Amino acid sequence: MGDVKNENDVIGVALIGIGRIGKVHVSNILRLPRVQLLYIIDVNRTFAEEYINEYNLVSTTALHTDDVDTAYEDNRVDAVIVCCPTQMHETHVKAALKKGKAVMCEKPLALSLESIVNCYKTAEDEKRPLFCAFNKRFDPQTAAIRSQIPEVVGRLKVVKSVSRDHPRNSIEYLKISGGIALDMAIHDVDMLIWLADQIPDTIHAIGHAHFDDIRDIDDVDQLFITMKFPDGTLGHSDINREATYGHDQRIEVFGSKGMLSGGNIRPLCHETHGDHGTTLPPIFDSCMSRYNESYRQEVMHFMDVVRGKSKLKVVGRETIWTTLCCHVVNESLSTGNPVKVHEFVQKKFPHILSEIDTWGAKTNGAVKSNGAHHINGV
Amino acid sequence: MGDVKNENDVIGVALIGIGRIGKVHVSNILRLPRVQLLYIIDVNRTFAEEYINEYNLVSTTALHTDDVDTAYEDNRVDAVIVCCPTQMHETHVKAALKKGKAVMCEKPLALSLESIVNCYKTAEDEKRPLFCAFNKRFDPQTAAIRSQIPEVVGRLKVVKSVSRDHPRNSIEYLKISGGIALDMAIHDVDMLIWLADQIPDTIHAIGHAHFDDIRDIDDVDQLFITMKFPDGTLGHSDINREATYGHDQRIEVFGSKGMLSGGNIRPLCHETHGDHGTTLPPIFDSCMSRYNESYRQEVMHFMDVVRGKSKLKVVGRETIWTTLCCHVVNESLSTGNPVKVHEFVQKKFPHILSEIDTWGAKTNGAVKSNGAHHINGV
Amino acid sequence: MGDVKNENDVIGVALIGIGRIGKVHVSNILRLPRVQLLYIIDVNRTFAEEYINEYNLVSTTALHTDDVDTAYEDNRVDAVIVCCPTQMHETHVKAALKKGKAVMCEKPLALSLESIVNCYKTAEDEKRPLFCAFNKRFDPQTAAIRSQIPEVVGRLKVVKSVSRDHPRNSIEYLKISGGIALDMAIHDVDMLIWLADQIPDTIHAIGHAHFDDIRDIDDVDQLFITMKFPDGTLGHSDINREATYGHDQRIEVFGSKGMLSGGNIRPLCHETHGDHGTTLPPIFDSCMSRYNESYRQEVMHFMDVVRGKSKLKVVGRETIWTTLCCHVVNESLSTGNPVKVHEFVQKKFPHILSEIDTWGAKTNGAVKSNGAHHINGV
Amino acid sequence: MGDVKNENDVIGVALIGIGRIGKVHVSNILRLPRVQLLYIIDVNRTFAEEYINEYNLVSTTALHTDDVDTAYEDNRVDAVIVCCPTQMHETHVKAALKKGKAVMCEKPLALSLESIVNCYKTAEDEKRPLFCAFNKRFDPQTAAIRSQIPEVVGRLKVVKSVSRDHPRNSIEYLKISGGIALDMAIHDVDMLIWLADQIPDTIHAIGHAHFDDIRDIDDVDQLFITMKFPDGTLGHSDINREATYGHDQRIEVFGSKGMLSGGNIRPLCHETHGDHGTTLPPIFDSCMSRYNESYRQEVMHFMDVVRGKSKLKVVGRETIWTTLCCHVVNESLSTGNPVKVHEFVQKKFPHILSEIDTWGAKTNGAVKSNGAHHINGV
Repeated sequence: MGDVKNENDVIGVALIGIGRIGKVHVSNILRLPRVQLLYIIDVNRTFAEEYINEYNLVSTTALHTDDVDTAYEDNRVDAVIVCCPTQMHETHVKAALKKGKAVMCEKPLALSLESIVNCYKTAEDEKRPLFCAFNKRFDPQTAAIRSQIPEVVGRLKVVKSVSRDHPRNSIEYLKISGGIALDMAIHDVDMLIWLADQIPDTIHAIGHAHFDDIRDIDDVDQLFITMKFPDGTLGHSDINREATYGHDQRIEVFGSKGMLSGGNIRPLCHETHGDHGTTLPPIFDSCMSRYNESYRQEVMHFMDVVRGKSKLKVVGRETIWTTLCCHVVNESLSTGNPVKVHEFVQKKFPHILSEIDTWGAKTNGAVKSNGAHHINGV
Repeated sequence: MGDVKNENDVIGVALIGIGRIGKVHVSNILRLPRVQLLYIIDVNRTFAEEYINEYNLVSTTALHTDDVDTAYEDNRVDAVIVCCPTQMHETHVKAALKKGKAVMCEKPLALSLESIVNCYKTAEDEKRPLFCAFNKRFDPQTAAIRSQIPEVVGRLKVVKSVSRDHPRNSIEYLKISGGIALDMAIHDVDMLIWLADQIPDTIHAIGHAHFDDIRDIDDVDQLFITMKFPDGTLGHSDINREATYGHDQRIEVFGSKGMLSGGNIRPLCHETHGDHGTTLPPIFDSCMSRYNESYRQEVMHFMDVVRGKSKLKVVGRETIWTTLCCHVVNESLSTGNPVKVHEFVQKKFPHILSEIDTWGAKTNGAVKSNGAHHINGV
Repeated sequence: MGDVKNENDVIGVALIGIGRIGKVHVSNILRLPRVQLLYIIDVNRTFAEEYINEYNLVSTTALHTDDVDTAYEDNRVDAVIVCCPTQMHETHVKAALKKGKAVMCEKPLALSLESIVNCYKTAEDEKRPLFCAFNKRFDPQTAAIRSQIPEVVGRLKVVKSVSRDHPRNSIEYLKISGGIALDMAIHDVDMLIWLADQIPDTIHAIGHAHFDDIRDIDDVDQLFITMKFPDGTLGHSDINREATYGHDQRIEVFGSKGMLSGGNIRPLCHETHGDHGTTLPPIFDSCMSRYNESYRQEVMHFMDVVRGKSKLKVVGRETIWTTLCCHVVNESLSTGNPVKVHEFVQKKFPHILSEIDTWGAKTNGAVKSNGAHHINGV
Repeated sequence: MGDVKNENDVIGVALIGIGRIGKVHVSNILRLPRVQLLYIIDVNRTFAEEYINEYNLVSTTALHTDDVDTAYEDNRVDAVIVCCPTQMHETHVKAALKKGKAVMCEKPLALSLESIVNCYKTAEDEKRPLFCAFNKRFDPQTAAIRSQIPEVVGRLKVVKSVSRDHPRNSIEYLKISGGIALDMAIHDVDMLIWLADQIPDTIHAIGHAHFDDIRDIDDVDQLFITMKFPDGTLGHSDINREATYGHDQRIEVFGSKGMLSGGNIRPLCHETHGDHGTTLPPIFDSCMSRYNESYRQEVMHFMDVVRGKSKLKVVGRETIWTTLCCHVVNESLSTGNPVKVHEFVQKKFPHILSEIDTWGAKTNGAVKSNGAHHINGV
């Protein structure tokens, strides 16, 4: 159970929450060798049953959330994938960790920083891996870009991203989303930090609400985040709640030797030529279609971690720094001025700075980051 | 069994041959709702067992080919997917059809035209669908191009394709492949006929062997096929056994209103910018990666056919005309001159012309083609 | 002379400064109908003579700068093009205007804001057009993007630019350049204002010197400028003194209906396909090659203005606002904080705000901008 | 006059025919150093005068065609550019050569092969360069592709071109054009031969008239030409009289190491993104805009030849082989069968084969081609 599995062992999985993303994970799990989906758990047990019937998953049991302990008590279950709504994350994550399970949880791990820290503390105490699924890092194109930085870009000068959502979320969702910084920009903040491999010194954010309903809930729908990193690298993210033309996702890394750029991807690429010019079909229309392969890759990574074949690629200190920086974004948005990251964290979350570098160390064997700059010790 | 299934019924499947393409089909079947893989049959039963174990397919039984009747006798089996080597196709296809199963078979259905005709005759007699999987038609980009022809291209003038393989096949494979026309160009011949929606009047082929080992087996590695269709449309395919830069697959359709073109696709699309210029990563490197989605689509189509939700998209008269045209290509290659298609068929396969239009009609409800031009009655 | 010329009249031109850009203008003038280059004036009269001989310009006279009055006194001269070094701009511009000539002058009109204002005041007094050649606006692609904004972009949300120079300027040039904001970013500031059709409310700038020699002269080589415009539109420019891969010039305009983007252009576009992927040749390698057509278009525009066929497309209030905003960029760079544009101008250049909207009005017939937002009255 | 000019000498030019292409050449000549346009000659002397006035060409004289000898007798005239209608080419070319002038003449040199041969014989006798302006070879992208073949393509296997005209020519023009092969496909035939650097062994052509008015004059508007070259390389050209979407011009060269492809070029390249997808502006809309730079390059090349700085890049044997191959295309179109090139030439133009390799040798110093394969000795 708590033991490291070897390559030929079957990994038993319980999945909590058979919603949109839960179904994606199940579909990917079914194609993985030596992985067995043992439980699907949902607040609506019927949803779990229907899915099991639809795909003839004869060795999978449906459970109501109230009966989740049945899964935790099952020694065959090695790993738990938490896909339920955010407010229930902390409870399930901690319970599973305490039962010795490896845990993968959808982003955000929790709405409050304290809850996130508590989850990672539990993982440390239990010496079990806790994987917060920042799916964009597992996009093959993005991963290829990052791996080519030393060779192609050289000394880093600029990292940039564009994230424009499609379709726009309903105002009901946006009200409970936690705001554009923690709900949406968190991916871009994580991306810039991950690409620059540093925590920014200062962050400046500016935004505007073009939609009346979004202005009414005191949020913005267009956001610019500017960062300055310790080595002089500048970062910029351009975030919007709606692009008419699809799910716009771009990154750019520029430096002394050259540039890497990742543009939008299309499900179809054929060209239509007429007197109007040449037209290409639309780019992917949602995060689900654009990051389809990323979801598959992140589950595969999680299985590799459970088998001891790979160290966790997203560790506690990263999730927490990214979350802290999103709080800095909110601070800058409200004051209008650039905010010094370490000063802000020291003032608002005074105990975190002394602890943050340890999170992720024990279960991953990752070395402590040497100095403030590099957060990805590998 | 022989009944049309309705949408909520589970389709039971037996798959014969768990090689490279068989595994692709199994992986896709596992993600399909209301489909149950009941048997994997192979000349090496161990291969089937290992695969079943690796993916925990607890409701799937491994069989040796000698015991294939066990699957045919199982009333739960509605559909059989034949993925074994070509020389065994005819036997399995006919046996399964005679047991009332719907059959999907990898291309080519058989090496000889007589065998192909016999398979379709059996399907007609048994009133069961026989689906020869011309996978390229199920490529979403290619399908989108075909559907846009009336609007974008107007009156057709040119259809073209480029197919260059990667990596080059071994000479051992090429020796038994049936030659470049029947092994490789058959996809392009099918594509041109399908896009032009007509049988060509004349075909001219010219080729060259740049590889010594291919010249030694009296085949060519570079082939040009030129067609003239009844309505004046010209067709051209440019086929090569090896492109260093990947699996090159392009089509172009041109006419009175404009042009549609389908270029190569890359698994990664990011750009590397340096003083040498801008570089994009390689295109897909094999037919398996390039047509990954096509394989999924064709299995989904076959399930729709079994459920009565869709008419067969590749019918007997199409498979047979495509095969006949490949024989014409070989004739032109050997004489050096253009060949009139109907004259050639009349002379070499005298009984086929009178029958060909009926094949595919009964099980699909498709109307007989009116006149020589349109082979896709829909 | 001072009269508006009609379409069939020959425009007589004197050009001051036969350096790199002067030669570009001469080459373009030679291809224009009904334009006669009468004088080439240079501090080194031999340069003018040599150029005249090389191109057999039998009706063109070479003059030393000390004898420039010979050209001004010549009634055939309608227009003067000032291409000499910046420090001599003001003298020549004013002298030519006072002689009743239409004047085109390279950017920047002068290094100090006071000098720029004085030039425009002279133009107003003399009722002669003064054209500050912001060449990038005359790039056909950029002009097409701006003209399509209402239809394609709708309500504006984001305007962005990237400008990375190639090759890097020598430190000797950079020392006297006026700094990255006034020397280089001025084009991007003009571009954002021109695309947004508004003066920004606030500007934030952040930068870094990656080159030691640039740090030593207290300048930066990487600059980010962020703007917020009155209608909520956000602007961003990413400026660098050196890109290894060519003269990187991009713009993007995003809004409620869609997006327009202008990427880099290549003199050659063929593709090289190998096992490394696909390579395109480098983008244009300098501003001279990238904006070759823009230089031609701006001279054509100036001739149209002289003939009364077109209103000036770059008027005084625009040049001055752009220059003011570059001063705001410098202020933000030095303080690290966002700067409110109108407050800054009120404090540093107190008399300008009351006058600025009139500049450009008289000679162009352009209406005064109504309200703060729209600076391009047309 | 007949002497080789050195680099500092002024080249005196007379241009015959101030039509569409004549104006392009004049515009380019005006920007060339040390070139003086001395005469513009036209059957309508007023056209020449008007053009001279419009561009203030004070050292250029207008002449009626009847007075062309005035230009030929002028010792300052070194070079004659013949841009008048094709039926007058031979007269002017021979007269100018006999007066010791270097001659550049638009393609085709003449309508009959005999006239072309006579022109080159005169050039040989007079030892003066005769430059038949195959403009497409001077396209920088095409020239770059050819120069990269050894490195990128390796052993050649395929050369292909697409040429689709825009806009369609009037039927009045097409009647006197000489037919699609000699009027339009001649560029592609020249291109394939130039890229393959060989004369084809066999040619097959097939076509169709989709336009009734073109069928009525016994021509086709869609043409496929297939070639087989001595080294096994296959060639294909796809030619059409009208593409709605612009002047479609593409080439592709494929071989053992990789592929080079030259696609269409656009005057504007910005992208429009909306829910329909992404649209690029139309490609160049005519040969005049697409090959603008080629026309400039070919005149520059001609001046280099006159100055002795460059050998002629298009020599007699090339022009004549290309023309012969167009006759072969017509032969194949009429018979429907492939035609062996050398057999056809031997039969129809029996004296040419023994002489053809000498043409172009004397004035260029180019060595005689060794063997049948390589026609570009350089």
